[in-house]
Amino acid sequence: MMIAPLIQPEIREFIEKKEFSVLKEVFSEWAPADLAELISELPEDEQVIIFRLLPKQLQAETFEYLDFEVQSHLLGNLAKKQIADILNDMSPDDRTALFEELPADILRQMLALMSREERVTAMSLLGYPENSVGRLMTTDYIAVKENMTIAQVLHYIRKYGKDSETLNMLYVIDDESKLIDEIKMRQVLLAQPTRRIKTLMDHKFVSLNAFDDQETAIQVFKKYDYYALPVVDNEGMLLGIVTIDDVLDVEEEEVTEDIHKMAAVEALEEPYIDEPILRLTRKRAIWLIVLFFGELLTASAMAFFEKEIAKAVVLALFVPLIISSGGNSGSQAATLVIRAMAIGEITLKDWWIVLKREIITGLLLGSLLAAIGFMRISIWQKIFNVYGEHWLGVSISVACALLGVVMWGTVVGSMLPFILRKLGLDPATSSAPFVATLVDVSGLIIYFNVAYLILKGTLL
Amino acid sequence: MMIAPLIQPEIREFIEKKEFSVLKEVFSEWAPADLAELISELPEDEQVIIFRLLPKQLQAETFEYLDFEVQSHLLGNLAKKQIADILNDMSPDDRTALFEELPADILRQMLALMSREERVTAMSLLGYPENSVGRLMTTDYIAVKENMTIAQVLHYIRKYGKDSETLNMLYVIDDESKLIDEIKMRQVLLAQPTRRIKTLMDHKFVSLNAFDDQETAIQVFKKYDYYALPVVDNEGMLLGIVTIDDVLDVEEEEVTEDIHKMAAVEALEEPYIDEPILRLTRKRAIWLIVLFFGELLTASAMAFFEKEIAKAVVLALFVPLIISSGGNSGSQAATLVIRAMAIGEITLKDWWIVLKREIITGLLLGSLLAAIGFMRISIWQKIFNVYGEHWLGVSISVACALLGVVMWGTVVGSMLPFILRKLGLDPATSSAPFVATLVDVSGLIIYFNVAYLILKGTLL
Repeated sequence: MMIAPLIQPEIREFIEKKEFSVLKEVFSEWAPADLAELISELPEDEQVIIFRLLPKQLQAETFEYLDFEVQSHLLGNLAKKQIADILNDMSPDDRTALFEELPADILRQMLALMSREERVTAMSLLGYPENSVGRLMTTDYIAVKENMTIAQVLHYIRKYGKDSETLNMLYVIDDESKLIDEIKMRQVLLAQPTRRIKTLMDHKFVSLNAFDDQETAIQVFKKYDYYALPVVDNEGMLLGIVTIDDVLDVEEEEVTEDIHKMAAVEALEEPYIDEPILRLTRKRAIWLIVLFFGELLTASAMAFFEKEIAKAVVLALFVPLIISSGGNSGSQAATLVIRAMAIGEITLKDWWIVLKREIITGLLLGSLLAAIGFMRISIWQKIFNVYGEHWLGVSISVACALLGVVMWGTVVGSMLPFILRKLGLDPATSSAPFVATLVDVSGLIIYFNVAYLILKGTLL
Repeated sequence: MMIAPLIQPEIREFIEKKEFSVLKEVFSEWAPADLAELISELPEDEQVIIFRLLPKQLQAETFEYLDFEVQSHLLGNLAKKQIADILNDMSPDDRTALFEELPADILRQMLALMSREERVTAMSLLGYPENSVGRLMTTDYIAVKENMTIAQVLHYIRKYGKDSETLNMLYVIDDESKLIDEIKMRQVLLAQPTRRIKTLMDHKFVSLNAFDDQETAIQVFKKYDYYALPVVDNEGMLLGIVTIDDVLDVEEEEVTEDIHKMAAVEALEEPYIDEPILRLTRKRAIWLIVLFFGELLTASAMAFFEKEIAKAVVLALFVPLIISSGGNSGSQAATLVIRAMAIGEITLKDWWIVLKREIITGLLLGSLLAAIGFMRISIWQKIFNVYGEHWLGVSISVACALLGVVMWGTVVGSMLPFILRKLGLDPATSSAPFVATLVDVSGLIIYFNVAYLILKGTLL
C-alpha cells in the first residue's frame, strides 16, 4: 500500500551507487501506480534512467499514471523505438488524454510513430469535442454476436481479450455493429458452455452517446453503479466503452472547478501548486476586480447617506457588522443550493419550495442575530455608556436592519443559483463572494433607511 | 437511459386505472435504478403498491437503490416474509448502510428476520467503527487456493459465484485464510484450463485494512484505478472486499460536507431538501452566531476610531469597500489551499512554498485594486468634487489600505488551513466566511492606522 514515499531514501542510494541490476529487479515487482509516484518525485535526469530500467510492459503501464509534464519529458529523452512501443501499448483513453495536451507538431510526430491500426483509433478518439464522452472512450472491449456459444465466447476472449480494459461485461452486437445487449461476464461464467449468448440476453442495457457531455457520464455511472458503460453513435453503433476510473478523474476536476468558482476563482489549468504565479494571479484578479467594482457601489451608497453619518457617527460603527452578517447568511444559502443542484438533489422546478424554506430559515436566523445584536448594544450601553442618549433607537435600528439584511441575504443567496441556471449559466458562478457583494450594497440601503425611519426626529 | 421521468405520466395513468398486470409486465423490464427513481417520486401509498408488483429478485435489487426514508416506509408496510426475502438478498454493504440508519429496536427486529448466516455477516460488518472501511465491505467475493487449476476455479465460480459482487478479481488465500495474492479474472480466462493458480501468481497486491478510514479507501482507489479492493485484518486475513460504487457514494458525501463546511454550515444529516427546517436552521445558526460574535469586534474597532470618523466622515465611506476586498482575496486563497489539501496536491510540509506564492500574488492583487481604488476616488473628485480639499490624502490612504488588507487577507486565508490541519482539525472549517471575519476586524485596524499616518495634521 503506497510504498513509494517510504522506500525512496534507499532507492536514492542505489541510484547514486549505480546498482542498476538491483533496482531493475526491485522495480519489476512494483505496482505501476507506485512506480509513477516514485518517478515523479525524482529529478528529471534520474527519471529517464529509472524508466529505462523497467520491463517493456511495465513501462507502458507506468507511463499511463504519470503527469503530462513527466510524460513529455520522458518522450523527449527516449529512443523512437521505445516511444513507439509505449504509445502502442497505452490504452486508447489515456493516450487521448496525453495527445490533448501535446502541441500540434509533437502530436504529428507521435502519431507517425504508432502502428497504423492504433493511429486510426487515436485519430477517431480525437475527433470528438473536448469534454465529450467520446474523448474518454477506449476501444479495447469484447463484442460478441448473439449466435455464439459460451464455449466459443470463452475461446474468443482467450484469443482477443488481452487488451480489453474490462472483462466485467460483454457487449452483444448485430451484423451492423449495432449494440443490442450487454451481458455480465458473471452470467457467461455461470452458464453451461454449450448455451448460446442469445439465451442469456434480455435486451436491457444502459449506454452513453459519444457526443454526450462527460458530466452526463458521471451521473449515469453514479445512478447505475456500473464499472464500464458502452458508448454508441447516433445510430446506436457500438464505438467503445468508458470505464469508471477515467470518469472519476474527470469528476475530481469538475468538483475542484466548482469549488474554485464558488470562491470566485476562474478554473485553473493545472494543480494549484503547479500553476504559474502570474496565471494564478490573473485567474483570481478577474473576479476580484469584478467584485471590487461591485463593492465600489457601497462607497456610493455610503456617500448618499453621508449627511446622516455625519449627524450620527454611531450609525457607522455597525456598518461592517450588518453587511457581513447578510453576506454570511447569503453565502450559506447559495452554497447549499449550488451543491444540491450539482448532485441533482434539486432542479429548476424546486425554486418555490426552496424559496419558502429559505424565507422561514432567514426569518429565524435574522431574529437570532437581531436579538444578540440588540442585547450587545444594550449591555455595552449600561456598562460603558458609549452610544449616547438615543442608544435605544440605535439598538432597535441595528436589530431591525439585521433581521432585514439576513432575510434578504438568504433569499438572494438561494435564488441567484436558480436564476443563473435558468439563464443557462453555471450556478457555481453565483459564488459566495458575489452574493456577499450584492448583499453588501443592498444591506447598506436597508440599514440606513431603517435607521432613518426609526431615528427621524431624534438622532437624525 | 434514465427513462423514469419521461414515462411517469403514463405510469400514473395505469396506477389510477389499477391496470396492475400491465404495470407488472412493464416493470419487470426496467433497470433497478430507474425503478427506484420512479418509486421515490410516487406518493407513499403508491410506493408500496408498485413495489409489491416487482418480481422477488428485482425487489431486492431495487430496494438497494432507494433512500433510507423510502426503505423504512416500505419495511413498515410489507409482510415479514417479504422483508426477510429482501434483507437476505441485499448485498451486505448496502444492508449495513440501511442498518446504520435504523433505530436500535427496529434493527433488532430486522436482524431476527434474517437467515442465521446472513445475520452473522451483518453483525460482523456492524462491528467496525463508523467511517471505517469495514462498514463498506461486502463478503461476497471469490477466494481460491493456489493449488487449484484454472478448470477447477471456473467450475468453483459457476457453483458459488452467483452472489459475488465482482468477478473482475479472484483472491488467493493460504490455509489460514491469509490473503497472499490477487489475480485478474482476465488472466484466468486467458490461461489454459490445466494450469494451476500458482503459476499465475506474482504476490503483488494492494489491500485495505478494515479499520482504515473510508477516505483512505478513496485515495487508494483513485491511485490504483481498481474496481474492487480486498480488505484484511491486522493479521492479513481476508475479510471481504470493497467495491468502487460504494466508495463513490461516500466520496460524494465527503465532498458535500467539505463544501458546506467551507460556507460555515455544519454537516447536514440528510439531503438539503429533506433536512427538516429547524435542524437546517440550527446547523446554520451555530456558525452564523460564532461569526457574528467575531463581527461584533468590528463594532468595537470602529468605536475605537470613532473620533477620527467624526472628524473625517469621508473615511467611513470606504470601510465596506476595504474590508470586503480583504475578505474576498482571503476566501480565494483559503479555498484554493483547502481544495489542494483535500485532493492531496499539497501537504503540511508545503506551507513555505504556498506562503511565498501567496505573498507575491497578494502583492500583485493588492496593487491592482489599490490602483483602481485610487483612480476611482480621483476621477469622482474631479467630476463631482465630493471628497473635500484633502481628497488626495484620502485616496492615498484608501489605496495603501487596500494593498495592505488584500495582502493580509491572502496570507491569512492561505495559512489558516495549514494551522488548522497542524492542530489536527479539518482545514475545510477555516471556511471562507471565517477568514473574511478575521480579515474584517484586522482590516479596519490596518485602514484607520494607515489613514492616521497619512492624514495626521491635515484631515485628522
